[in-house]
Amino acid sequence: MSGADLVNVPARATRALIRDAFVASGLPEADAETCAELMTEADLTGADGHGIFRLPQYIRRLKAGGFNKLPNIKITRGAPATALVDGDNGMGHLVMSRATNEAIAMAQETGVAWVGVRRSNHAGPAGLYAEMPAQHGMVGLYAAVANANHMGTWGGTDLLLGTNPLAIGVPSGEGPLILDIATSIVAYGTVKKYAQRGLEMPKGWFVNAETGAPITDANRSHEGLLLPMGEYKGAGLALMLGLVAGVLNGAAFGRDVVDFNADDNSETNTGHFIVAVDIARFLPLETFKSEVDRHLRDLRASQRLPGVDEIRLPGDRRAECRAERARDGVPLARPLLVLLDKLADELKIKPLAER
Amino acid sequence: MSGADLVNVPARATRALIRDAFVASGLPEADAETCAELMTEADLTGADGHGIFRLPQYIRRLKAGGFNKLPNIKITRGAPATALVDGDNGMGHLVMSRATNEAIAMAQETGVAWVGVRRSNHAGPAGLYAEMPAQHGMVGLYAAVANANHMGTWGGTDLLLGTNPLAIGVPSGEGPLILDIATSIVAYGTVKKYAQRGLEMPKGWFVNAETGAPITDANRSHEGLLLPMGEYKGAGLALMLGLVAGVLNGAAFGRDVVDFNADDNSETNTGHFIVAVDIARFLPLETFKSEVDRHLRDLRASQRLPGVDEIRLPGDRRAECRAERARDGVPLARPLLVLLDKLADELKIKPLAER
Repeated sequence: MSGADLVNVPARATRALIRDAFVASGLPEADAETCAELMTEADLTGADGHGIFRLPQYIRRLKAGGFNKLPNIKITRGAPATALVDGDNGMGHLVMSRATNEAIAMAQETGVAWVGVRRSNHAGPAGLYAEMPAQHGMVGLYAAVANANHMGTWGGTDLLLGTNPLAIGVPSGEGPLILDIATSIVAYGTVKKYAQRGLEMPKGWFVNAETGAPITDANRSHEGLLLPMGEYKGAGLALMLGLVAGVLNGAAFGRDVVDFNADDNSETNTGHFIVAVDIARFLPLETFKSEVDRHLRDLRASQRLPGVDEIRLPGDRRAECRAERARDGVPLARPLLVLLDKLADELKIKPLAER
Repeated sequence: MSGADLVNVPARATRALIRDAFVASGLPEADAETCAELMTEADLTGADGHGIFRLPQYIRRLKAGGFNKLPNIKITRGAPATALVDGDNGMGHLVMSRATNEAIAMAQETGVAWVGVRRSNHAGPAGLYAEMPAQHGMVGLYAAVANANHMGTWGGTDLLLGTNPLAIGVPSGEGPLILDIATSIVAYGTVKKYAQRGLEMPKGWFVNAETGAPITDANRSHEGLLLPMGEYKGAGLALMLGLVAGVLNGAAFGRDVVDFNADDNSETNTGHFIVAVDIARFLPLETFKSEVDRHLRDLRASQRLPGVDEIRLPGDRRAECRAERARDGVPLARPLLVLLDKLADELKIKPLAER
């Protein structure tokens, strides 16, 4: 899509709009701040399907009573190194940041901590939560049950699996190295972005469930089946991560998943898990970082296949995006700007253009 | 390949040959038993590249002094819920079964345990170790740095990444449900099996590093580059798992990996990690199992894409293979039988045919 269809908006402005929209919709100020910060971080790091793009949907859900505005988030320590967080149907960003902070604090005592989460909600890109332990000298490992089932099991067409993402973060000398992957061939947020921007999807993303023929019109993706990454392997990973992030925590999976795109009212009972591993319990953190740096240099210096201009490693786009967008602003598509202006008008808050 | 090229041998016989070969090569009897049991389990569950197939290579390495026959395996508890195992260059099966048993015992106390391993060796299929916690009512999560680099980073051709496998196991009413995937498009053991059996590889497994053209002759795979599963996602996962299974434990990764196919002498310093999570700390084990069973029933009953006869879930082939091979024997290719007869002759132990 050409740059003419995108308008760069300073992150300061998008963040303020998000915060004010949440406050106007009944969230306590500190909670609105937390959500605005994490959603802006998603926008800055290029997770375009997970930042301000989601604001109209979140606000609609808050209005409809689908989120609990004043959740009583409860943390139960089942064992010295495990906890189960009950999010009381609060905003996913609030629940997951609480859970991740708890995991980091616990891992400082026990070396590793595994925190499961139930009764949460959509919490933005997986990378956000894998990065937090990495910022504290830890390995972060995060997975979630996605908030809609767009995939089938391998060979099947019943929509029983989500894009259940996996993120792994480790510290390096250049800052956290983050892998954030959906177990589908592409993240559904990306499909939504394509639809909103009127872009054609590559073949191999969606197929018609009855004929197996490819679907390339992003606005017709709901008629088909999203394919897993790496064929049966991605489907298998979506299943196992779903069992561990969902079933283990008493959260929704499979047939019980609520499609939060279609339903603004029902509690989603979203499940996640976050694991934090304290690197210093294995070797000095500085040794770990310098060894990671050495290996990354080797990978970057690799000879390349014909037609490849540059080696890209996990998180490179994240880091570049962050630098570029902090300087130039977050590129927003015109149809999204129209929705955000309408939202500001309804909530009686200052529109983006005046911020 | 036609059935005529394969001979079914009772698992009892392959297991006895493996055990005797190890004892004749200097392993203590109990250690030979452990290795034979795990390698036979690999054969029974269909991990054909990881069972008796590896015996000639292991024996060659034992003779060459590449393995420590009498390792002093040391376990250091860095924190209440973490440990680092130093395998003292013993056989990988011994080191990893010790590490996994330790993780299970620790997780009974702390709810979760993360055990890293260094100075180990090739330990067979990843699924073996993810299954052990699942047999004890736990989630098992295992990864390893593979013992040769057959992949590059995405777009790169320097062989800096292994097929670094990931396995996840959970209990179900029908027994453990195990996902065991290489981060390459296919496990290298499978490529070795294709080469030994003279099978042609599908396009998309290997490419020529200079031209990018596909390689389909399994005996020429060493001239090329093994591709990751799911393109950049598999390469990213191989990298991150390698950092956590390797670098975190002070084990080899990247440029430091010893290709144990080419080198029988040098210590490989193989790294792994195993995580065990005690399900009962989150919900009653029976509830977990019955919920898993319910979801598996839904998946199996799914409508199917055109041309798909049956829904296959992770571990189905494992379970079927195990039943079939326990009954009918382990199918071994004639070239492998020739190698095993030669080995028995050299070690002055009874050949397979007499067992």
